[in-house]
Amino acid sequence: MNKTQRLWKEAKEIIPGGSQLLSKRAEMFLPEQWPPYYQKAKGAEVTDLDGRKYIDMSLMGIGSCVLGYADPDVNKAVERAIELGSMSTLNSWEEVALAKELLKLNPWAQSVRFARTGGEAMAVAIRIARAYNNDRPIVVFCGYHGWHDWYLAANLASGKNLDGIHLSGLEPSGIPTGLMNTSVPFHYNKINELKKAVSKYKVGVIAMEVIRHQEPKSGFLEEVRAIANKIGAVLIFDEISSGFRSRLGGVHPKYKITPDMAVYGKAMSNGFPMAAIVGKKKVMEAAQTTFISSTYWTERVGPAAALATIKKMREKNVPAHLDRIGRMIGAGWKRLAKKHGLDIELIGPNVLITFALKYKNSQEIKSLFVQEMLKRGYLAGLTVYVSYAHKESHVKKYLQVVDEVFGILKKAIDDKKVAKLLEGPVAHAGFYRLT
Amino acid sequence: MNKTQRLWKEAKEIIPGGSQLLSKRAEMFLPEQWPPYYQKAKGAEVTDLDGRKYIDMSLMGIGSCVLGYADPDVNKAVERAIELGSMSTLNSWEEVALAKELLKLNPWAQSVRFARTGGEAMAVAIRIARAYNNDRPIVVFCGYHGWHDWYLAANLASGKNLDGIHLSGLEPSGIPTGLMNTSVPFHYNKINELKKAVSKYKVGVIAMEVIRHQEPKSGFLEEVRAIANKIGAVLIFDEISSGFRSRLGGVHPKYKITPDMAVYGKAMSNGFPMAAIVGKKKVMEAAQTTFISSTYWTERVGPAAALATIKKMREKNVPAHLDRIGRMIGAGWKRLAKKHGLDIELIGPNVLITFALKYKNSQEIKSLFVQEMLKRGYLAGLTVYVSYAHKESHVKKYLQVVDEVFGILKKAIDDKKVAKLLEGPVAHAGFYRLT
Repeated sequence: MNKTQRLWKEAKEIIPGGSQLLSKRAEMFLPEQWPPYYQKAKGAEVTDLDGRKYIDMSLMGIGSCVLGYADPDVNKAVERAIELGSMSTLNSWEEVALAKELLKLNPWAQSVRFARTGGEAMAVAIRIARAYNNDRPIVVFCGYHGWHDWYLAANLASGKNLDGIHLSGLEPSGIPTGLMNTSVPFHYNKINELKKAVSKYKVGVIAMEVIRHQEPKSGFLEEVRAIANKIGAVLIFDEISSGFRSRLGGVHPKYKITPDMAVYGKAMSNGFPMAAIVGKKKVMEAAQTTFISSTYWTERVGPAAALATIKKMREKNVPAHLDRIGRMIGAGWKRLAKKHGLDIELIGPNVLITFALKYKNSQEIKSLFVQEMLKRGYLAGLTVYVSYAHKESHVKKYLQVVDEVFGILKKAIDDKKVAKLLEGPVAHAGFYRLT
Repeated sequence: MNKTQRLWKEAKEIIPGGSQLLSKRAEMFLPEQWPPYYQKAKGAEVTDLDGRKYIDMSLMGIGSCVLGYADPDVNKAVERAIELGSMSTLNSWEEVALAKELLKLNPWAQSVRFARTGGEAMAVAIRIARAYNNDRPIVVFCGYHGWHDWYLAANLASGKNLDGIHLSGLEPSGIPTGLMNTSVPFHYNKINELKKAVSKYKVGVIAMEVIRHQEPKSGFLEEVRAIANKIGAVLIFDEISSGFRSRLGGVHPKYKITPDMAVYGKAMSNGFPMAAIVGKKKVMEAAQTTFISSTYWTERVGPAAALATIKKMREKNVPAHLDRIGRMIGAGWKRLAKKHGLDIELIGPNVLITFALKYKNSQEIKSLFVQEMLKRGYLAGLTVYVSYAHKESHVKKYLQVVDEVFGILKKAIDDKKVAKLLEGPVAHAGFYRLT
């Protein structure tokens, strides 16, 4: 066992689950083979603890490093902030500059609060929205919104309410039963589920991801907005995964629907902890009627990183780059799948381009794909979070390797030898296995 | 109005409350006079946006910068982590090294999880403890533990349960009423209140600050531990404010009482966002039965900063330095108060040494103290969070200025001119005014 794998084994003894993020557990990619740790990450290249180098054509910091790893411009801004003192008894002026920038990007909004992780930013947004509609705290939501009590409470009712919402299998263990029916899920694009929920419960908040892998049906987002208006609910768009990727700011302006609050995180600060809650003043002022306060929300690195990231995204038109590179990757997969007779389905948007394997044993085939790509120097799965560090030359080389590996997959499928070719266990799926 | 004050006025228009932390609102120190923003912070010196320099003899990053601002050793470690890529799809090996370090400092513990802010770390600890005792989610607590729902829920019952606990006036607006009676406060050193709570409710968790400004009565902590054992409750020590200050790790070993979990934040990483939950394996493994996961909990800066901070604290015996400097400050206040006939009370511990003004109009007198110290180049209030950057020379100069200002205070009190001498409004107190 090499150094990288050995440390993971040690970690799992002293850190429940091994990692602080489910999506970074090596077992989610490929048990015993995926490198759990890195020594260095620069551009699109990652070096593990044993000095092995990989090109990351997978999740790029789980979607956080939209400019690539250790981006020189963002790093420069952060290092300057650190040299000048990243924390003090006084406040960082950068957070006001960032607030102004976010309000420019969200002309419907007048107020901003900050946090440092996406989950807590959503919890802040829910708290403010509930304080605004204090007599009716029930949240109707769709999509994934993190680990907090308000969200997992949805699974108290049936134990599987979140199934099929975005990610299923989230256990409500440790959530007080008094929260039962305080948050109620609905499926994306199923407006009748939302209508039913608002007629059944005293709903004060509607929270959703604007989009994930499905485009909204015609009129869907308009109807959500109309329902929120009608019942006086606060509409929150969770733009943590979607924001600062295909557009500067959120994706919602593309659909011409404005929420009452929008929440940002991940890509906004290119890997440095930062998150923001942007909203209409009348709603956001409810923050003053409750208590939302944390020491580390006031340090300087987060806003300095976000300002530098947004500046570079704008100057380099990064969204256009991500779209173009994602499109190239998708077209390449499609072409190569056709060439080898592999049955795949392409799933958008281009900025986090994905393919599905249309086979019963898709999880095994995926595992073989990951294994063979790893051997050839790639961190790769079925999704690429495209970054500005991914250039055409990366895609060309990557697709040459995919060509070879798709050939191996097809042959293995035809020969019914997929499982046999795996040199370790199959990758864990979704949220079903947390160990 | 200068640049520093102007920005604060702008900020309050677009950021509810102006700051992300109640304790950093300029009004908490001195409205219209306290500088709300800094440009640079180095050692114990802070420069505002107008180039005015101050020595910080106040909260030193609200207790987070125990080594001083922009500590060269911690900054060097952080800058190296940034150069090598602060984030990637893979995990940071530094978090495993930090977990090992924390387990060395807490020999009763076997497991560690990480977060990035104190409030969320306490919410993680409560979630895990509740998941462990899933049939009885009620938390009995004392002390201050942040902004999360589980904590503010205590104020649903009477609207003022938290009065006198540590900080009063926390509004439960936006907290679902289903959480009523899921958290119940008791006062420090009042064991009968704890006994009453555990006889009345199905308590699964006891959470407390080991110590704040009062020493535990003889037998108090022992009795808390015995009650937790008897009812099978998880005992959580919140060491966010107390930890890594008078001792490396928590203060609880001083009292020879071990909790089931301990939570660290603030000083552990000298101003870079980081927090840790340390616990007994059998309890911590309950994390695997629920869902606790966040992207930005996996970045590299936090653990790199914490490792460097702990290393320096150990090498330089920082706790001894803080104690010595705090003792000097306290002795100085006492001597100068006596000299001028000012009635003050000294409150420990030395590492966050505090004095109280024993007057009816103490808030006005405090405001005058802050105002006159500011004029003389000091950020100063009634508490000093001592740091390694505070040297004897700082204390000597500071006490010379305090000598002068105590004289002004005494004369103003005798002449009944305290209010008249104030050049702006009185400082806001506690959690009573959030605007």
